[in-house]
Amino acid sequence: MRITDIIEKKRDGNELTKDEIDFFVDGYTKGEIPDYQISALLMAIYFQDMTAKERALLTSAMVESGDQIDLSAIEGIKVDKHSTGGVGDTTTLILGPLVSSLGVPVAKMSGRGLGHTGGTLDKLESVPGFHIELSNDEFINLVNNNKLAVIGQSGNLTPADKKMYSLRDVTGTVNSIALIASSIMSKKIASGADAIVLDVKTGAGAFMKKLHDAEELAHAMVSIGNHVGRKTMAVISDMSQPLGYAIGNALEVKEAIKTLQGNGPKDLTELCLTLGSRMVVLAKQAETIEEAREKLTQNLANGQAFAQFKKFLASQGGDGSVADNTDLLPRSKWQIDLPAKKSGYVSEIIADRIGKAAMLLGAGRATKDSEIDLAVGIMLQKKVGDQVKQDEPLLTLHTNTQDVESVKELLYSSIAISEQPVKAPTLIYGTIED
Amino acid sequence: MRITDIIEKKRDGNELTKDEIDFFVDGYTKGEIPDYQISALLMAIYFQDMTAKERALLTSAMVESGDQIDLSAIEGIKVDKHSTGGVGDTTTLILGPLVSSLGVPVAKMSGRGLGHTGGTLDKLESVPGFHIELSNDEFINLVNNNKLAVIGQSGNLTPADKKMYSLRDVTGTVNSIALIASSIMSKKIASGADAIVLDVKTGAGAFMKKLHDAEELAHAMVSIGNHVGRKTMAVISDMSQPLGYAIGNALEVKEAIKTLQGNGPKDLTELCLTLGSRMVVLAKQAETIEEAREKLTQNLANGQAFAQFKKFLASQGGDGSVADNTDLLPRSKWQIDLPAKKSGYVSEIIADRIGKAAMLLGAGRATKDSEIDLAVGIMLQKKVGDQVKQDEPLLTLHTNTQDVESVKELLYSSIAISEQPVKAPTLIYGTIED
Repeated sequence: MRITDIIEKKRDGNELTKDEIDFFVDGYTKGEIPDYQISALLMAIYFQDMTAKERALLTSAMVESGDQIDLSAIEGIKVDKHSTGGVGDTTTLILGPLVSSLGVPVAKMSGRGLGHTGGTLDKLESVPGFHIELSNDEFINLVNNNKLAVIGQSGNLTPADKKMYSLRDVTGTVNSIALIASSIMSKKIASGADAIVLDVKTGAGAFMKKLHDAEELAHAMVSIGNHVGRKTMAVISDMSQPLGYAIGNALEVKEAIKTLQGNGPKDLTELCLTLGSRMVVLAKQAETIEEAREKLTQNLANGQAFAQFKKFLASQGGDGSVADNTDLLPRSKWQIDLPAKKSGYVSEIIADRIGKAAMLLGAGRATKDSEIDLAVGIMLQKKVGDQVKQDEPLLTLHTNTQDVESVKELLYSSIAISEQPVKAPTLIYGTIED
Repeated sequence: MRITDIIEKKRDGNELTKDEIDFFVDGYTKGEIPDYQISALLMAIYFQDMTAKERALLTSAMVESGDQIDLSAIEGIKVDKHSTGGVGDTTTLILGPLVSSLGVPVAKMSGRGLGHTGGTLDKLESVPGFHIELSNDEFINLVNNNKLAVIGQSGNLTPADKKMYSLRDVTGTVNSIALIASSIMSKKIASGADAIVLDVKTGAGAFMKKLHDAEELAHAMVSIGNHVGRKTMAVISDMSQPLGYAIGNALEVKEAIKTLQGNGPKDLTELCLTLGSRMVVLAKQAETIEEAREKLTQNLANGQAFAQFKKFLASQGGDGSVADNTDLLPRSKWQIDLPAKKSGYVSEIIADRIGKAAMLLGAGRATKDSEIDLAVGIMLQKKVGDQVKQDEPLLTLHTNTQDVESVKELLYSSIAISEQPVKAPTLIYGTIED
């Protein structure tokens, strides 16, 4: 088999076989096929796309290129949730306790990542004492006993994807649905989940700005999951404005706690119920979405979800009392309001700009080695559709520096106020199951 | 300027600027831009093509990547001819003496090359004593005095093209009209010609099998030449069957001599007159194609072209008496006829298979270091349209081995005989001047 023939076959729009896909993924991982042939192949894929079968084969080949997490010692159906990423997205912190309170085993591997705020690990570390250094056995025992544990990423997962992603980044081949979907799904599948719920974001703060693109990506990922035998569903949700009110690490933990107590923001709560009910059904802890949603709503109201969160924090060394007294979380030195310059209705809160502002305050990492400030961030006071009077605060900056003029300017440029009433944006655009 | 932006711009179908094209050609030549980014860009060009302006800019950038031959010390308009390559193509050996006999300066740089037979240099070296080791001054003096000289390729011409061609060869990006045309034209332009006549072949023995593709390539090259200020014309000619009767080095020299004496094969003579008349017009040695053709025809008939050939051979150390007695040329030990298996009309002589057979006999190089046998090759006895009787020879193998069974089989598979009369194929499909 020759890589040149494979490049030409894809270039001419033909479907690659399993052997051909395995050949190039394996050869590239081992360094036997050079970057310059894979980049040409990736560009050919960019133009000619891949069939559903090819995408599944590529995903499997990338999964097999490295270690795979074995969660078989955990009882029950392990359901993972993945979000394509947004601003103020606190769903993981809420969904873990919420769905595990119904007996769904949640064995979460989580990273720190780059972005507007830290990853789930960073956020959890704002709880004093909480740690994720668990042995594999401790992790599995915790999930079996408590139905919920979080561990840092370990092992050499999907090295083919890592290598190919770096190459795509510098060769103009990132924006291919086939390649994006295979990349995401390979990581999820290598992490050992039996079933997967995807939260595909769309809007200014999302990777997929347009609804059509988000839907296409969701279909592609659901198709891959189901092709490789992992039951997969996707929800398309709005990321034109930030989710909830909090953007920042400790701020989002606080918001997650309020949500677990049944007092969360309407949009964040709704998204958690939408995603959570699908996780519960996939884990066979409910027959229907409606039944699952009712049970989840009950556990938010009756304190079970909140109790599960406290138990989880304590099981990994965290100070559970934080959940009862969120003033124990890291707090910034200053809280500075951003007053509205005129009265009207909030018509736009551009999510990615708000995220950028939070990062400038220190809430996120620009590079792998950046320090993160867990205390800082932004609390929205208004959301799209809300009425606002002149000088009323649109949001509050939580900051450890008073030098925030340029951040305030960025924030003003992120928020539009209209004279006419404005409808809140749709939160859930749909769900995709095949 | 970032190469990633250039890749994405081309990927999205936009026209690159001069600065962008210069940036990537220069950066790649210097090794500052890695192969993997250029291969992605080449694949993007494969799919999105280049405008006429981009093609001309790419060609100029490749010309400027290395040395350029300065022919300004040669008087008159230097016209070069380039063929896209075929089987039994002896035109260069004929056109040099023919057009220079009318005062057109022919300063030919020639290579050995790979293929069915050797290059023009190999063929000329079948004349005892002939050599191409000339100093630059000797070369220029010879052209000024005799209007014709041939020298080997020297200098670091179009290193960007060399590097990019090697990369295209292993990344599935050879078959792009924009890239093929720029590659050919960059070499011609760097070689210093003021004007260029292109012989673009089409048919089984040509790089462009289909007439439409050959026309597209011809238009592309003519456009590039004229864009960069070198008057360029193209002739589209048939390469479904070999040109003339001879395929082999000494065999083609013999055929060239016969042609220069006015006794050449009809198709070879016609193609030389077609190409030659355009060279003469571009060199302003005739006002019209018709006038040029008449003068060339005269010089074939009156012995001037033949005399010019002898003078040329002698001027570079060759034994001019070879021209009068072609038995002095290298001869193979055996001549083996290939008899027709049935009577009828020759309906097909598949050029590339005949070429392959000649190479198997030793007439060409499979790799750069292969030894070439100047004596061997194939003499066709029939051409498409000719009537043939059973057992009459279709062709003669000139060989230094008697172990030719597999070559004969290949040759039989190259020639079809039909019961119905067959028309000879069109030789000249057209000429392209813009």
